[in-house]
Amino acid sequence: MTSGAPRAEDGTSPPEDTGFLAVDSGGSGLRVAVGTARRGVLGRRSTATPVPTGARGIDAERLMEDLVPLVEALTADTGAPRPSAAVVGAAGLSTLGDALRAELPGALRRAFGVRRLALAADAVTAYCGALGARPGAVIAAGTGLIAVGTDLVRWRRADGWGHLLGDCGSGAWIGRAGLEAALRAYDGRSGGSAGLLARAEEAFGPVQGLPGRLYPRRDRPAVLASFAPQVAGCAADGDPVAVGILASAARHMAESARAVCPDGGQPLVALTGGLCRMGDPLLAPLALELTRLLPHARRVPAAGDPLHGAVRLAVDLAAGTLALPPDEKMLQVVTTDRG
Amino acid sequence: MTSGAPRAEDGTSPPEDTGFLAVDSGGSGLRVAVGTARRGVLGRRSTATPVPTGARGIDAERLMEDLVPLVEALTADTGAPRPSAAVVGAAGLSTLGDALRAELPGALRRAFGVRRLALAADAVTAYCGALGARPGAVIAAGTGLIAVGTDLVRWRRADGWGHLLGDCGSGAWIGRAGLEAALRAYDGRSGGSAGLLARAEEAFGPVQGLPGRLYPRRDRPAVLASFAPQVAGCAADGDPVAVGILASAARHMAESARAVCPDGGQPLVALTGGLCRMGDPLLAPLALELTRLLPHARRVPAAGDPLHGAVRLAVDLAAGTLALPPDEKMLQVVTTDRG
Repeated sequence: MTSGAPRAEDGTSPPEDTGFLAVDSGGSGLRVAVGTARRGVLGRRSTATPVPTGARGIDAERLMEDLVPLVEALTADTGAPRPSAAVVGAAGLSTLGDALRAELPGALRRAFGVRRLALAADAVTAYCGALGARPGAVIAAGTGLIAVGTDLVRWRRADGWGHLLGDCGSGAWIGRAGLEAALRAYDGRSGGSAGLLARAEEAFGPVQGLPGRLYPRRDRPAVLASFAPQVAGCAADGDPVAVGILASAARHMAESARAVCPDGGQPLVALTGGLCRMGDPLLAPLALELTRLLPHARRVPAAGDPLHGAVRLAVDLAAGTLALPPDEKMLQVVTTDRG
Repeated sequence: MTSGAPRAEDGTSPPEDTGFLAVDSGGSGLRVAVGTARRGVLGRRSTATPVPTGARGIDAERLMEDLVPLVEALTADTGAPRPSAAVVGAAGLSTLGDALRAELPGALRRAFGVRRLALAADAVTAYCGALGARPGAVIAAGTGLIAVGTDLVRWRRADGWGHLLGDCGSGAWIGRAGLEAALRAYDGRSGGSAGLLARAEEAFGPVQGLPGRLYPRRDRPAVLASFAPQVAGCAADGDPVAVGILASAARHMAESARAVCPDGGQPLVALTGGLCRMGDPLLAPLALELTRLLPHARRVPAAGDPLHGAVRLAVDLAAGTLALPPDEKMLQVVTTDRG
């Protein structure tokens, strides 16, 4: 039993409109929205610097340092009430979220008076942004790739293992395969593409120097993913090797979706993330593969992005109507009343 | 025209037996042999620390600091004459060899009186160790993979692009594919192998922690390659996914060999490096693929390792009978008489 419905302090009805705070913390920075359960989003702000990861995982103190001025500015700009419910969606939450789980409930209580907090994996905010609280599967595909699904009883996830162990079909996967095909052409090995070689040299200079430009960098997956649009362009020109790479990517994506999608009912399936911008060379084979592997699921466009998902979760949390299932690693709801 | 055949200083005949120095500088350290053109190798020593790479590439000063005491000890132990010819085979020579090319000729002249120096890519010492000065193709496959071939007129190379861009069929490639198959089984995606999952957990612990144990390390390719023997073991047990991974690896290896092997004549083809120890699960499909893709080439076992190749080159250099073709990046011969 939760302690305290969204009701005014003096017990009168109708209850006050409850304020919320929605946060999406990812590789490109912090994105924040404030609003109320009835009026929806009143304002948005963001930073361009990601919250750093330290020995204890995602740094909760630094997240609060970045968050407090954003929320204060938003409250001043919009007149939004102090948030009693907050949702923080964070990339890497399940493996790097120990400090967030330990420190955020108390810190958000002290800073803003937050009484209920949901900590969500970025895959969950992506899911909720795309499909809301409906059963189905979402493929979140940008530089990396993870699939998440739910029957509203439990969550399932597939892939998301990073660019060396998986993320099959992701931007890094597609770009890496395209560069391998370019170098095969350079070497005179089979499976090469002269078109991808030309595009690789346009993007990165002479390929002899490519290892020296890629391996010393810390953002290797992003460098690889930066070549994915070139693979799509080459496929659009009819290059059979590039077409084959995107067909394989689409198959991997659909396989991950199948692994997480509910077997029964009429689940929805959606793609979200940067790979949506790859256009028909990827999206056409993906539609075919999803129809083949998930004939009972209905393909729908994603309704919104992960911040939109965090907002949806926050509105439901504020109203006490959260329908997506809690999960120790994916979606953890904490009541901070005793904090 | 080279200045000075291996002849005694006073011009008498027969010429003195010429001393040589052979060096193999790789990821596991420095390996050194001294000897004479007529008597062959008289002694060997090694260090366990690789020569570091700095802003100017492989650090020539540090290489000399490690080399001088080894050579002095070997000369004292064996009574070998001071080397007038030296061969230094180094991993990364073509891209990271600027300092070696600039500084080693003078440094070796001053330290030991070396008059002729050959700087060889590690792929060339691997080739010469495996096949000597005969036309053919060598697949050098350990953590990484490169194929080199020669018709004794020029060198060709294929792959060797590192674990993200290529090294297709290498130990890192096989291990990575095996771990992906393990995680596919864990996720319930197609293409998974329960046998590889069990072996992955035995080797690395629960797979949920695998990304955290792999990505922060600097020796990621070696970590991936450490799983390759498990893939071979699983294939030997009949696991179809593991068998398929090794069949693909064998195809990639043979494709690289085909790209560098002379088209005419009766070239030799050999495998050298750590993957030789993978046994039949890899070597049987490799034999099939080589027969399919290079029907005119004769498969032979590698005669020796890269240090053996450096020794062969050094003996030929000392005797003035070097038959393998010089090449700006692969095999550079420098006369240091004017140094």
